[in-house]
Amino acid sequence: MKKMDVIEAISTRRSIRKFTGEPISDSELDIILRAGFQSPSAHNRQPWEFIVIKDKSRFEALAKVHKYAQMTLQAGACIIVCGNTDIQELTGFLIEDCSASIQNILLASHGIGLGAVWVGLYPITEHTNNISNMFSLPGNIIPVGMVVIGRKGEEKDKADRFNVDKVHYETW
Amino acid sequence: MKKMDVIEAISTRRSIRKFTGEPISDSELDIILRAGFQSPSAHNRQPWEFIVIKDKSRFEALAKVHKYAQMTLQAGACIIVCGNTDIQELTGFLIEDCSASIQNILLASHGIGLGAVWVGLYPITEHTNNISNMFSLPGNIIPVGMVVIGRKGEEKDKADRFNVDKVHYETW
Repeated sequence: MKKMDVIEAISTRRSIRKFTGEPISDSELDIILRAGFQSPSAHNRQPWEFIVIKDKSRFEALAKVHKYAQMTLQAGACIIVCGNTDIQELTGFLIEDCSASIQNILLASHGIGLGAVWVGLYPITEHTNNISNMFSLPGNIIPVGMVVIGRKGEEKDKADRFNVDKVHYETW
Repeated sequence: MKKMDVIEAISTRRSIRKFTGEPISDSELDIILRAGFQSPSAHNRQPWEFIVIKDKSRFEALAKVHKYAQMTLQAGACIIVCGNTDIQELTGFLIEDCSASIQNILLASHGIGLGAVWVGLYPITEHTNNISNMFSLPGNIIPVGMVVIGRKGEEKDKADRFNVDKVHYETW
């Protein structure tokens, strides 16, 4: 497997929304999924749950209900990161933990040469309801975000987002 | 600068809460801070703001108001990641964006050999109020989380958090 320095991975990762339609392997998916488990969480509760989708008919269903999820049609996999409110009852912490997990998934995908994009779900009720209905999620499960992963159908240059106006030294 | 593969960084990073008290360099802090800017954000709004603290008297003040922030006393730097509600009015998205940024900061710190820990602020009103008061934050600024960074005073083995019960293939 190709290696990529973590600082390089963080600074060169971009949201990839065009895929070739080629599959991704189970070993690639395993690396990515395991990365999702490795984020920190409030009080180390690890309140995440992952729905892993590779079935084309489900990609079509997702594209139908989410206007920003059209790229699923050419994707290799989709991971819906959910939070379990039985494990972490504070929604704020739950969202933080799942978002750190999603960032790990995005970086791991990039690190092994795949493209990926975070498609937002929470806090848009239309999206969370649609996903809850489609996957018959129990009431204690909040779908936080969806990561669509695939072989890159586009390349993007590094985007330097540093902005000195947003850095406040010692105080505001 | 030492290099670390991104998959290795994700899988070996741990929360480090003991530091040696030695300073960290401006170039190290620059790498870490830039990582914070490089996360994705909803509609690419980049609603984060960073308070960067190196002053020991402020570390003492932080330790006084936050029982989980005692490690600041031996830290090299502290970065408080805040969200700007004028840029992203949906709190859910704001928290997601800032959490992805925090995860980048944690991974970058680990990648260059430093220790770091995420000290939770939002949604605990006591913590967000204390930080807002201490730093005279404007009303549109939510302090989401605090990353305390320093030279490691403890080493921790890799923790494999993979749990097959939390993986749901194709549906719940």
